[in-house]
Amino acid sequence: MAIRLEILQRSSENGARLGRVHTPHGVFDTPAFMPVATAAAMKGLTPEQVRSTGSQIILNNTLHCMLRPGAERIAKFGSSHAFMRWNAPILTDSGGFQAFSMADIRTLDDDGVTFSSFVDGAKVRMTPEVSIRAQNLIGADIIMAFDDCPPAAAEVPMERVREAMHRSVAWLHRCKAAHARPDAQALFGIVQGGTHLELRKESAARTCEIELPGYAIGGVAVGESPERIADTVRFTAPLLPDAKPRYLMGVGYPRDIAIAVAAGVDMFDCVLPTRNGRNALAFTREGALRLRNARFADDQAPIEADCDCQTCAGGFSRAYLRHLFSAGEMLGPTLVSLHNVRLYQRLMLAIRRAIGCNAWSALETDWPCLSAAREQPTGDPE
Amino acid sequence: MAIRLEILQRSSENGARLGRVHTPHGVFDTPAFMPVATAAAMKGLTPEQVRSTGSQIILNNTLHCMLRPGAERIAKFGSSHAFMRWNAPILTDSGGFQAFSMADIRTLDDDGVTFSSFVDGAKVRMTPEVSIRAQNLIGADIIMAFDDCPPAAAEVPMERVREAMHRSVAWLHRCKAAHARPDAQALFGIVQGGTHLELRKESAARTCEIELPGYAIGGVAVGESPERIADTVRFTAPLLPDAKPRYLMGVGYPRDIAIAVAAGVDMFDCVLPTRNGRNALAFTREGALRLRNARFADDQAPIEADCDCQTCAGGFSRAYLRHLFSAGEMLGPTLVSLHNVRLYQRLMLAIRRAIGCNAWSALETDWPCLSAAREQPTGDPE
Repeated sequence: MAIRLEILQRSSENGARLGRVHTPHGVFDTPAFMPVATAAAMKGLTPEQVRSTGSQIILNNTLHCMLRPGAERIAKFGSSHAFMRWNAPILTDSGGFQAFSMADIRTLDDDGVTFSSFVDGAKVRMTPEVSIRAQNLIGADIIMAFDDCPPAAAEVPMERVREAMHRSVAWLHRCKAAHARPDAQALFGIVQGGTHLELRKESAARTCEIELPGYAIGGVAVGESPERIADTVRFTAPLLPDAKPRYLMGVGYPRDIAIAVAAGVDMFDCVLPTRNGRNALAFTREGALRLRNARFADDQAPIEADCDCQTCAGGFSRAYLRHLFSAGEMLGPTLVSLHNVRLYQRLMLAIRRAIGCNAWSALETDWPCLSAAREQPTGDPE
Repeated sequence: MAIRLEILQRSSENGARLGRVHTPHGVFDTPAFMPVATAAAMKGLTPEQVRSTGSQIILNNTLHCMLRPGAERIAKFGSSHAFMRWNAPILTDSGGFQAFSMADIRTLDDDGVTFSSFVDGAKVRMTPEVSIRAQNLIGADIIMAFDDCPPAAAEVPMERVREAMHRSVAWLHRCKAAHARPDAQALFGIVQGGTHLELRKESAARTCEIELPGYAIGGVAVGESPERIADTVRFTAPLLPDAKPRYLMGVGYPRDIAIAVAAGVDMFDCVLPTRNGRNALAFTREGALRLRNARFADDQAPIEADCDCQTCAGGFSRAYLRHLFSAGEMLGPTLVSLHNVRLYQRLMLAIRRAIGCNAWSALETDWPCLSAAREQPTGDPE
């Protein structure tokens, strides 16, 4: 097996586990948050800046990398680690989620999906075999099964969700058979089933009977309410093998992460800290701040007084950050993304400490944002 | 006087001087290159990244800072140093050049200039007194006289150039009288006169009879040929006081800088390394590279093999940089700007070494780009 989960401690208060995952490119602590470097680049941040946030593993999006610069091109460097100069663990998604959510035109059948490239409009055919070959070329430490991802559960008939779930299991068998580098790259299976708990149960059973180094929960946070997210994760996480990493894909807000950790999830990724950072929305322990708001125009305080990120500790004020966004300066997205990713990593540190000390209630006291129904940015819109 | 030039050595080969300038925010070595942080921010670079290039002094544009965030707002922080977190010398221009070159509508008279704000279209009135007050508020170590800057000499009748030159001298008297902080901020006068050497001579005489801590050559590299730039600078630089810093504004390409240093100029600023960096044009000792070119798609070499910038020494390849620009990733402009600014600072180090060792011809051998008539990017357009 390419990776190994070492469980260091279990919470006595809930299902959370403290651990570390050993990979061919080093170790990462769990529960872990992985920021997203879509096209083999974190938007606006150098790898050194990403390291400064305490991030130990990052995510690349396979579909983006396939379409530009091309998986073969990355493979000429050895792997994405060398290409983007990130000498630490990387995870690639399968491209399935992007194909289903971003592509303009598509046909879907039991063999795969056809859609138009968002780069040049060319027709692209994705199958489990195509995805795994691309992921083998990109060379991440953890790779993901190519699955059928229907959009937000509420809009989709249960029969479509069931079909997607069955198709994903069938495709997982093909992914495992196609995987050429199982000793170097750990393939994770993905449990689907939307918000239908009976489908989640069947998907978990059929996915986990395929022997793999880790398992993920997919199809969550695709439009449902926070309560539905929580219900689905609390139900599904315990159905995944205890001894292997559990990964909740694409989630989410701090509160969603904390709930999932308590349910036994070990790994997370989300674009929120960087995407919101580019839009002048700063996360804090208390909630989020819209830095474009006029009330920050003369605010000499940092985003958060006790934050150790390069932006806050570097003395950049809310007033300066607001100015950068007003003036359209690239440095604004960089500095707020730096803060937001560090905020997420500070949350993960606090979560790991809470597990280690069996002090979950202190975590919720220290992080008021975990109690909010959803991150509500403070301050009126300009 | 707010600043002091210490001349350490004079070239035996030409008019170049090796020195250092002492300012209220520290020392910078001369000949010096100042990268441009227009709106109190270097585009895409943190102050720490700017420091990594060896830059010791940077430039802010007064007009940009006045219009957004406002000079009063910066003054609440003490000065631009605190506002933008650059704890080293800063120079501000007067806003004159921007008012004359960027503003849509304007009226010009002996009192000042009126134009439309590029931020919100509001009418803005700039006079010597308005500029100096703004520069006093922004608080740079070196501030510049507000002058009348006609555009590229070739398009402008000599009478207009003569008028601008006389007006600039009259305005310089008003700038000096309006300057409220001469002990903390050094006001430089600016010699005008376009490419008309007789006007340059008169401007230099009338400007330098006003006692000031430094003098600049303005109105150069506003559209003339490299030969005209060289002729003007070679003629004008020796007319400025020997004991005080000489600053050639807005210049230029490496060759222009080397020629001006040999004529006795000490200070330079230019947007080329950052503006071209944002457009995927990388400077090298050999000349410039257009990194968008398809020939770099699989080029694993850094921009320059022997460069010590964070981009080259960090192992980022030409292929990766090309990918970043193809994908529209912000990291591309950041990494190439980092390289280009460092390239300019490496040039200044080499120039200072050439002066110190009286080895100017070795400089030209080591820096082939100094011999080119103009930086010609290599590689065909895509």
